[in-house]
Amino acid sequence: MPSKLPKRMVRRHPERGHYDPETIHAIVDEAYVCQIAAVRDDLPVVIPTLHARINDTLYLHGAVAAGIFKDLGKPVPVAVSITLLDGLVLARSLYNHSANYRSVVAYGLAREVTDVEEKLAALKAFSDRVAEGRWEDARTPNPVELKRTRVFAIPLEHASAKIRSGPPSDDAEDLDRTTWAGVIPLSVTRGRPEQDPVQDPGIAIPSYLLKEGT
Amino acid sequence: MPSKLPKRMVRRHPERGHYDPETIHAIVDEAYVCQIAAVRDDLPVVIPTLHARINDTLYLHGAVAAGIFKDLGKPVPVAVSITLLDGLVLARSLYNHSANYRSVVAYGLAREVTDVEEKLAALKAFSDRVAEGRWEDARTPNPVELKRTRVFAIPLEHASAKIRSGPPSDDAEDLDRTTWAGVIPLSVTRGRPEQDPVQDPGIAIPSYLLKEGT
Repeated sequence: MPSKLPKRMVRRHPERGHYDPETIHAIVDEAYVCQIAAVRDDLPVVIPTLHARINDTLYLHGAVAAGIFKDLGKPVPVAVSITLLDGLVLARSLYNHSANYRSVVAYGLAREVTDVEEKLAALKAFSDRVAEGRWEDARTPNPVELKRTRVFAIPLEHASAKIRSGPPSDDAEDLDRTTWAGVIPLSVTRGRPEQDPVQDPGIAIPSYLLKEGT
Repeated sequence: MPSKLPKRMVRRHPERGHYDPETIHAIVDEAYVCQIAAVRDDLPVVIPTLHARINDTLYLHGAVAAGIFKDLGKPVPVAVSITLLDGLVLARSLYNHSANYRSVVAYGLAREVTDVEEKLAALKAFSDRVAEGRWEDARTPNPVELKRTRVFAIPLEHASAKIRSGPPSDDAEDLDRTTWAGVIPLSVTRGRPEQDPVQDPGIAIPSYLLKEGT
């Protein structure tokens, strides 16, 4: 890593910073989408893409990411952001309104995954994020598809998590106000699977999809 | 705008690109969080922050954003990404697995909002995103808070939207497979407001919060 990579320390609200792999991995694993930023022609670019994690490595589905890694002959510096929004925090004063969230930001060098075994493991990890059991049920990639699918890897060793939870923090002089204060919880929910309308409706929803909390 | 700002055209899956303000504004307005990327010391940085929109201008809550706009004496190039994930798309082949989403990416020059009237309008827009009516109920910012709160503005004129919806697109030769195919819908839901435990429980949840689909 170049020594001038940005420090991973949380500077604003340092008490919200977390650096242990367990906390970072749990946030990465719950989110489906990450945002990947890079520099192109001295300007910032950022795009959303699906991700998966194996150990301390974040894998990005590259079809989309390839665009911002245009001349990727060698590892390029990237910044990745993953955010789970847990609630809107309503304080008695507008100034203290906030959000409850769990977020991860990682700085690192993105490399393209060329090893076939590592690539297959990453693709299976993407599939497992949708539902464990899907990899065994759907048609696995053929050699042409495998070549066409680009996967990028980013180490999570320079990642940091930032978490806010709990009720609002109002100033002491506002506590007697009768303005309702609290949290509006936000969560992502999976709906009932909707079958492809061109498929035989006799094909049942597989059990591995039903057990995923739908 | 410098002429070398990245083109806003959607290059991969161009059929998913949308450039009309109505489509872009609807996505911006539904999301609570955006990701803002910038270049610092030649390296990419990216952070999540809350946003609001007035006409064709995106406003960022600056307390957080200020860190990446460190030496903001003049407008700085930024890239903003906003993503709404609507579903996981399960095709018969793993290769054609995808996601349904509505996303916006905007490139532009971020400027700090110094005009008090514009700043107040932006802060009210943030408040309205939580719930219309909140601005009138909570304590409004005093001069010190107003000065401390930094707000940044980014024009949305260089924004593009990208949308995927509907069932999976499988290859013709896979259509006869008996692998269940379809979409698992994902949505963000607001839960019942949770009152600050130190507040008098006799203070009722305001009607403007109840009507927001809780």
